[in-house]
Amino acid sequence: MTAAAPVWSVDPRTGKPREQVAVEATPQEVDTVVRAAHAARGALADRAVRAAFLRAAADHLTAAREQLVEVADAETALGPVRLTGELARTCHQLRAFAGVVEEGAFLDIVIDHPDDSAVPPVPDLRRHKVPLGVVAVYSASNFPFAFSVAGGDTASALAAGNPVVVKAHPDHPALSELVAKVLRRAAAGHGLPADVLGLVHGFDAGVELIRHPLIAAAGFTGSIRGGRALFDAAAARPVPIPFHGELGSLNPVLVTEAAAAERAAGIGTGLAGSMTLGTGQFCVKPGLVLVPSGAAGDGLVKTLTDAVSDTDPGVLLDHRMRDAFLAGVTERAQLPDVESPVTPGAGGEHTVSAGFLTVPAERLTAPGPHDLLLEECFGPVTVVARYADDTEARAVLARLPGNLTATVQLSTEEASGAGHGADLLAALTPLAGRVVVNGWPTGVAVAPAQHHGGPYPATTSPSTSVGATAIERWLRPVVYQNTPEALLPPELHDANPLGLPRRVDNHREG
Amino acid sequence: MTAAAPVWSVDPRTGKPREQVAVEATPQEVDTVVRAAHAARGALADRAVRAAFLRAAADHLTAAREQLVEVADAETALGPVRLTGELARTCHQLRAFAGVVEEGAFLDIVIDHPDDSAVPPVPDLRRHKVPLGVVAVYSASNFPFAFSVAGGDTASALAAGNPVVVKAHPDHPALSELVAKVLRRAAAGHGLPADVLGLVHGFDAGVELIRHPLIAAAGFTGSIRGGRALFDAAAARPVPIPFHGELGSLNPVLVTEAAAAERAAGIGTGLAGSMTLGTGQFCVKPGLVLVPSGAAGDGLVKTLTDAVSDTDPGVLLDHRMRDAFLAGVTERAQLPDVESPVTPGAGGEHTVSAGFLTVPAERLTAPGPHDLLLEECFGPVTVVARYADDTEARAVLARLPGNLTATVQLSTEEASGAGHGADLLAALTPLAGRVVVNGWPTGVAVAPAQHHGGPYPATTSPSTSVGATAIERWLRPVVYQNTPEALLPPELHDANPLGLPRRVDNHREG
Repeated sequence: MTAAAPVWSVDPRTGKPREQVAVEATPQEVDTVVRAAHAARGALADRAVRAAFLRAAADHLTAAREQLVEVADAETALGPVRLTGELARTCHQLRAFAGVVEEGAFLDIVIDHPDDSAVPPVPDLRRHKVPLGVVAVYSASNFPFAFSVAGGDTASALAAGNPVVVKAHPDHPALSELVAKVLRRAAAGHGLPADVLGLVHGFDAGVELIRHPLIAAAGFTGSIRGGRALFDAAAARPVPIPFHGELGSLNPVLVTEAAAAERAAGIGTGLAGSMTLGTGQFCVKPGLVLVPSGAAGDGLVKTLTDAVSDTDPGVLLDHRMRDAFLAGVTERAQLPDVESPVTPGAGGEHTVSAGFLTVPAERLTAPGPHDLLLEECFGPVTVVARYADDTEARAVLARLPGNLTATVQLSTEEASGAGHGADLLAALTPLAGRVVVNGWPTGVAVAPAQHHGGPYPATTSPSTSVGATAIERWLRPVVYQNTPEALLPPELHDANPLGLPRRVDNHREG
Repeated sequence: MTAAAPVWSVDPRTGKPREQVAVEATPQEVDTVVRAAHAARGALADRAVRAAFLRAAADHLTAAREQLVEVADAETALGPVRLTGELARTCHQLRAFAGVVEEGAFLDIVIDHPDDSAVPPVPDLRRHKVPLGVVAVYSASNFPFAFSVAGGDTASALAAGNPVVVKAHPDHPALSELVAKVLRRAAAGHGLPADVLGLVHGFDAGVELIRHPLIAAAGFTGSIRGGRALFDAAAARPVPIPFHGELGSLNPVLVTEAAAAERAAGIGTGLAGSMTLGTGQFCVKPGLVLVPSGAAGDGLVKTLTDAVSDTDPGVLLDHRMRDAFLAGVTERAQLPDVESPVTPGAGGEHTVSAGFLTVPAERLTAPGPHDLLLEECFGPVTVVARYADDTEARAVLARLPGNLTATVQLSTEEASGAGHGADLLAALTPLAGRVVVNGWPTGVAVAPAQHHGGPYPATTSPSTSVGATAIERWLRPVVYQNTPEALLPPELHDANPLGLPRRVDNHREG
């Protein structure tokens, strides 16, 4: 018997191990955690209890803020300001899902009373949605709170009534353990089994998890390579399961001629801020920016050069990412016609410095070695493609893979509806799940209308991992036919004392 | 160059070819049809035009009823009464989706006005749903109207604004051509390109279709083997696409002791009618019936014996199905302890006769050769499993794969809420997408609350192919951030002159 593999917490500022946090889960241990979660599922049936649990989880996380932020910063180097904000966002998200659970619109209740005149006749039909079962959540490295143990996937899956087993990200195992303990304590405090939230460590454990027969669905945030491997495993199961993965995104930005003419400097500064935010480790970092050739575009590039040059070096989440970043920018910079007004690269032994590349857009209008520039490069770098005219810019857009976001910078006149503004918006819509006008894609608000997803590889399904509708991923409809009220769940009775939103005989009520 | 493979219309009553209808599509021809559909997608953007087109399609199909039913009967032997009803249902479904398009709830509009006090701040966010792109529809053999060229998949995909390319089922190619012509004429009559509806024939063409880069999603109704192969192909694409397949279902029925004691004869007669309806060629045919051992259960089996013996032989949809049915029942009947009170088998040269098998439920409580009885057998046969007690019946239920339906026959007292009625319902809910009480699963009403789907292999996604919510399969959300009204689609403006159902600042309106 081999010894259990240790899981170390590592300080990315020094590359040195901090402490051993746990051991990697064996297949037997994964099985035990999943079975415990499965056994706990009935306890989540009550919506009021679920809502109270989610709120308590937010309260407990808020109360533990100091310790959580300290550990998170030690493991991720993201800094206390950003991490405090991210924790607040995460708690807001848990509370927002408590509200979603209480309102009950997500149950999608539809009731049809019998109609013998229909062809074929309609019996009494009462539909609502039920949880899928145990959900596997694969945490991200770059949002140790918001897309991790207590993040959007977990919050929405619990809100829908599913137990969750989280595969911890190896970049913040100590924080993962702490957050899991907080959630399990909040559960126990509301009479729920602590096992509604399980946690496992280890790459192999993650693979075991996706194959486990009692896992009913999965959420993932990470790389295209890792996400696609898990997607493939989910699809290859004897019983395939839904796999909602957020894999990668270039997040193109189009700057029109008129916008560049109107406010080149403002756009250049804004872009520098967005692409270097969090040391470029956002899934919505603008990775390709179409800038017109000519004087206005030159001015934009000049401002960008100044602003990026002024940016302090930053620490990436781990050394593997740093290596990939340095290799990625080197490979890109060596392509013909690619220039580096500010060369991204090694800052110090454990940091990297921000930079950007330029390329004539013409190089991107047909397949070739420059297609590498259309792949996401994680870290503080972006590619500015200079286009000669609208046709060339659109030819580049038409070649892009799916994205989380697509952004357009318009002039005041274009934004007012004059000219081709609406046309451009229509051209950007097929590319992404979120279209941003005169802003930047970084910063994903937690709000009912939010959509954080997009055509593959942005996400593997037409779903979102942020916003109220994220709950839809973890439910399936069931309809009861000619079932006496005495046997039906209360929300499907004719009476609707709680005023649940429902569709009854094709009229909306509640 | 090889000659194009001919596509023949065959009379299942004689096994003789009727006429050559078409040729199988080559890869180049599939590409041409898909590209034409893709080029036509913009024309479907207007919801009013789509609704009018769907209604016109229903009108044109109704007007052509005589010819359509005649050709359908010649190719399927399903009989003019059933086919006339199925056509009416299909037209009703097209009209119902026209209503869904007009109402606009499917757009799932959510609008959040800016809120700077949120963490992070919420910008102006306006979300709706947009069509995915060209949808591939694989028609079923057993519903030549309702699950074929103008069936639920096509109607819901068009309603959502997507062009459709149908892979015709080889059991009714002449009818497929006729229906496609009617739809294309209806489109042209409303100023739409006829290519919003394409049709291809041939097994290889179906495989080409699922791999085509411009196909954005697929709907399928058919066998587990065929459906899984296409599901796997959809998942293995460089850009995977949603595959909504309805593959197979056993549709278990549980008869309680008390129900058998109360109305054994009624249940026996009802079961005979349901399992032989349409010569047992329904995806919701009850394929496994748990009947208590003892006198009441014996009485039920006796009534079933009489009723099934009285059923006339019927013609199956094609000779391959007839061979599979005969082989399937023979293999099952040879299992130890399996008896055939009425032996299903060959009626005449082109017909089959209905029958059923019995087995002690004990044989089904653990893995073994009797697991064959837990697989769907297409045609007029069912399996009656006699159980000793509640524990044994539940042990069998716990071993079942996913189903479209699960049915329970309860006594008057159990249905009133006394005893274990609610418990049984809770035990059946995880098994299926539709739970039927004191009725039979055959007959799938077209109604807003309908759900025709279930855990795998019933369907490959938690979606439905019947009912208003079937439209959800062919859409993806897009949110616009800080976008001036002048550039937004009208339904996302603040004003809501059409009274579209929307959620604005987390309050429902419209």
